[in-house]
Amino acid sequence: MKKAFRVSEIEARDTYKLLSGLIVPRPIGWIGTMRSDGVKNLAPYSFFNMIADEPPLVMFAAGKRNGQLKDSAAYAIESGEFSVNIVSAEVVEAMNATSRSFPPDVDEFEECGLTAWFGTETGAPMVAEAPANLECKVYSTVDFEGDESPVVIFGEVVAIHVREDVLDGTRVDHAALDAIGRLAGAGYATTRDGFDLLRP
Amino acid sequence: MKKAFRVSEIEARDTYKLLSGLIVPRPIGWIGTMRSDGVKNLAPYSFFNMIADEPPLVMFAAGKRNGQLKDSAAYAIESGEFSVNIVSAEVVEAMNATSRSFPPDVDEFEECGLTAWFGTETGAPMVAEAPANLECKVYSTVDFEGDESPVVIFGEVVAIHVREDVLDGTRVDHAALDAIGRLAGAGYATTRDGFDLLRP
Repeated sequence: MKKAFRVSEIEARDTYKLLSGLIVPRPIGWIGTMRSDGVKNLAPYSFFNMIADEPPLVMFAAGKRNGQLKDSAAYAIESGEFSVNIVSAEVVEAMNATSRSFPPDVDEFEECGLTAWFGTETGAPMVAEAPANLECKVYSTVDFEGDESPVVIFGEVVAIHVREDVLDGTRVDHAALDAIGRLAGAGYATTRDGFDLLRP
Repeated sequence: MKKAFRVSEIEARDTYKLLSGLIVPRPIGWIGTMRSDGVKNLAPYSFFNMIADEPPLVMFAAGKRNGQLKDSAAYAIESGEFSVNIVSAEVVEAMNATSRSFPPDVDEFEECGLTAWFGTETGAPMVAEAPANLECKVYSTVDFEGDESPVVIFGEVVAIHVREDVLDGTRVDHAALDAIGRLAGAGYATTRDGFDLLRP
C-alpha cells in the first residue's frame, strides 16, 4: 500500500523531507568560488549533477533567502567561474564543516583547514585535498521567480583534474575514488557497496 | 599527484567517461510519460535531481540525437506531464531492461513486465512496483543549442506516493527504501553502506 501526499495540501517542510528522502543518493558538488575582492568561498550542494557531455555541462541549484542569492551562486555569477570538488570519504568531514553558514567575509578554505589551489583555465579556487576537481565557466543561469526559489547555475567544464591513482586511462576507479553521496537529514552513503548490470 | 585534462583537447567520449565517473553516485529518475495516442513510455535518466522544495522542482536532462528529442522528453513536453519512479534494489533489473532503445511504438511497461498505474493529479503512467512515485507537471524547459545538446526539463512535483513501510511520518526510512544510485559504465551503488554526520 502507498500513501499519497498532494503537495498543495502539505507543508513545504514535509515536501522537502519527502523529496530529499526519496531522491537519493545525490552527488555532492562542493562548489568553490572567489569574490571580486579575493575572498574565497566553499560550500556543498547536493542539488547538483552532470547534465551532458556535449557541451560538457554540470548544474547546481541554490535556494534564495528573502530574494538574496547564496554566496556561492552570487560569486559564481559575478566572476563567471566556479570549481566543483569531488567529495570522497577522506574529505567528507571537511565538506561537512564547510556547510555551516559562515559570515560572507570568512574564507572557508582557511576556516576549515583546506588548501586552495588553482588550475590553468579559471581563477576559481579548488580543494587540493579532494580526489578530483572540475574547473567550470558559467554557461547560463535560470532564476526561478519567488523570494525562496532557486537559481540554477549551468557550468561548462573546461578542465578536469583527477588524482592519478583514481584513473585507469580516462576511466574512473570507483573503489579508489571512494565518493560519498547525500541522503536526507544527517545521512550519507558511500559508493562501496556496488554491482554491475550489463546494458540490455 | 593529479592529472589535468583540458576538455577542449580531449575526445567527447573521454569527457563523458571522466565526468560520469566522477559525478557519482547519481540518483536515477525513472521517467514515465504518455504519448497523445496513449502509448506509454518509461526510461531511466541519471542526469536527474531535485532542485528545490519551494516550488517543489525536479529536473532531468535528455540528450538530443541529430537534433531529435528522446521519447521521454518529447512526450513530457507534449503532454505537460511526467512521472518519476524511484529505483530500489527490488526493481533495478526492470529499470535496466527499460534502458534499451525500444522503437517508439513499444510500451516499455508491457515489454518489461511492469504494472502501469495512475495518480490523481496527472495522466502520466507510474510504475506500481517502485517504492515511490512522483507526479510532475512540466514547469519549464531549457533547450541547449546544438544537435547533440541536452534539453533540461524542470517538473513541479504535484503529488508524492510512497509505500507505507518506507515512511516514518514524512521521513523516509533509507533502509526500507533501499534506493540505488548510478555510477559509470555498468556500475551501480546501493545506499546500504551509510553513516550520519551531524550538521556543524
